[in-house]
This record gives sequence, C-alpha cells and structure tokens, in this order.
Amino acid sequence: MAKEPVEFLLKEALLKRGLTVATAESCTGGLVAARIVNVPGSSEYFLGGVVAYHNDVKEKVLGVKRETLETYGAVSPQTAREMVEGVVKLIGSDCGVSTTGIAGPTGATKEKPVGLTYIGVKVKERVEVFKFIFTDDSPDPVKQRNRRRKKAAKKALKLLLAMVEGRL
Amino acid sequence: MAKEPVEFLLKEALLKRGLTVATAESCTGGLVAARIVNVPGSSEYFLGGVVAYHNDVKEKVLGVKRETLETYGAVSPQTAREMVEGVVKLIGSDCGVSTTGIAGPTGATKEKPVGLTYIGVKVKERVEVFKFIFTDDSPDPVKQRNRRRKKAAKKALKLLLAMVEGRL
Repeated sequence: MAKEPVEFLLKEALLKRGLTVATAESCTGGLVAARIVNVPGSSEYFLGGVVAYHNDVKEKVLGVKRETLETYGAVSPQTAREMVEGVVKLIGSDCGVSTTGIAGPTGATKEKPVGLTYIGVKVKERVEVFKFIFTDDSPDPVKQRNRRRKKAAKKALKLLLAMVEGRL
Repeated sequence: MAKEPVEFLLKEALLKRGLTVATAESCTGGLVAARIVNVPGSSEYFLGGVVAYHNDVKEKVLGVKRETLETYGAVSPQTAREMVEGVVKLIGSDCGVSTTGIAGPTGATKEKPVGLTYIGVKVKERVEVFKFIFTDDSPDPVKQRNRRRKKAAKKALKLLLAMVEGRL
C-alpha cells in the first residue's frame, strides 16, 4: 500500500475528532498551509493562517510580544510558542502549528546556525515546542534553503498529526 | 540564458523601487507566499500574508465585508479586491496580491466552474482584478486541483511583477 502523504492522514485525524486548524509560518513561508490545502475538502477543517515573515507581522498580527522578540529573537522556542498561541486566538481554531527558523543561506549567528528551526504545535489546551536543525547537502545554496524549508514544513505536519492522534 | 523564475525577477523589481509586498490567499493556500520566500533575501521586501481559506478569516482578519461575501460569493472580483486591499492595510505593505478561486474537484456551481479564479493586485494606489479559468487535463482529480492552484500562484506572481514594472 502506498504511504499516504501526511496531509491526507491529518484530514482523517482532524475530521474524526471534529477539530479545526490554523497555521503561523515564518521560515516555511506558506508551505505548511499549502500542503494542508493540497487535500480536497480541506476547507472542512483548515480555517486559514498567517505568514508572519517580518517581525512586525509576528507582533501586530499574531500578538507575539515585542519583549519576546527582543529578548529571545524571532528564531526561539518562546516566539514559536507565542506564534501558535496567537494564530489559534486570531483565527479561532482548535489546533495550530507554527514555524520559525533560519532557512539560510545567510542569517546565522554564533548561537543560531542555518537550519535551526522551532516548531510550535497546539492541540486544544496543550502547547509544545520542538527544536530541529535541518541540513541539506545540495551544493546550490538556494536549493539548500528551500529543501530545509520543505523538511521543516513536513516535520510540522507530522508533529501536528502525532499530537492530534495522541501519539506525542 | 536560463529564464529566471518570476519570484527572482520580482525581487529585483521590488528592491529597485523600494516597495514591500503582502499576500492574501484563498485557493492557492500559501503557494504564492511560499514562492516569494523561495528567494534568499526575500525578507527585505516580503512582509507576510494571510491564508484566508474560511470565509470567517476573509471577514475577520482581512476585513472583507460580509455583504460582499453574501452578495457576490467568496470567488468573485469584489472579494478578490477586498482581500488585497485588506491585507495591504493589515500588514502595512506598499503592494499586495490576492487569490480566490474554485480549485476543485468539487465546489463548482452553474455560474462558477471549477478553475474559476480571481487575482487581485495592488501596487501603491492602483488596484486591479483579473479573471481566469485554469484547466488541467490530468486524469487524477487531486493532481488537477493542485496543478490549477500552482498555475494560479504563478499567474498571481506574474501579474504582480507586471504591475510593479508598469507593463500592465
């Protein structure tokens, strides 16, 4: 049997439980939402999302505190948590997923390497934040950037599915 | 010379003019934003966007009037216009692009076929709405859906580029 893409499994898991979902994306820039919408009938459980690329959008639209951004930075577990909490509140969904990371090729600092990504997941009252460093061995820095973003989007969907299904 | 993807040309066109952009997507569900973010350095001109899949998100987050949604429907030139105007206001960008369409396989009505899509573009004070019917001959309805969405996203980027460059 062919393995179903995670977004199709997510449909089944959400519909079975009567749950809706929203997305808040920085580094993935819309890839998580776009994969959810790949599935016909996703309008039954996907309400919408925010691509919060600039910090002003994280702050003004999602309600991430300026203090959080200044103290911990945009790529931090604190920001990932406030992003997912913010989008669920803004959109009024039961669940949410957020991504914030350094896609590269630039943007790394001493403490934060290219590929560092935080993924926030909220399922009803529970919020969890996960940390990853996504790598890619493509010699082309643009391909590297976008493969990292795709890996982050896939991981975000998998974590959301696992939490919805109570496996995580 | 290899033809550069439209999102790379858009970078050049926006930076040259010092313009920023935001996205408001329904049927494309994040694909337009994701393509813009494919480009390293897109944080210089892409502020963010809203995936307004459910009508409540179009209304509450983007400020599309309920009357517009009820009178003309979500897939209408009026909604496309209010979506792009709403996201530019919400995010505070100079330019914006919006998409609303029937990706299929279901959702068509007598007056509105699958593939019908409206794309709104705002460049400074000017707003234009364009109408398309995107078709695809794949025998797989899911592939059809997602190829239509990809075509719509590409067209949205091309229209935005053309208006930024003053060719349209």
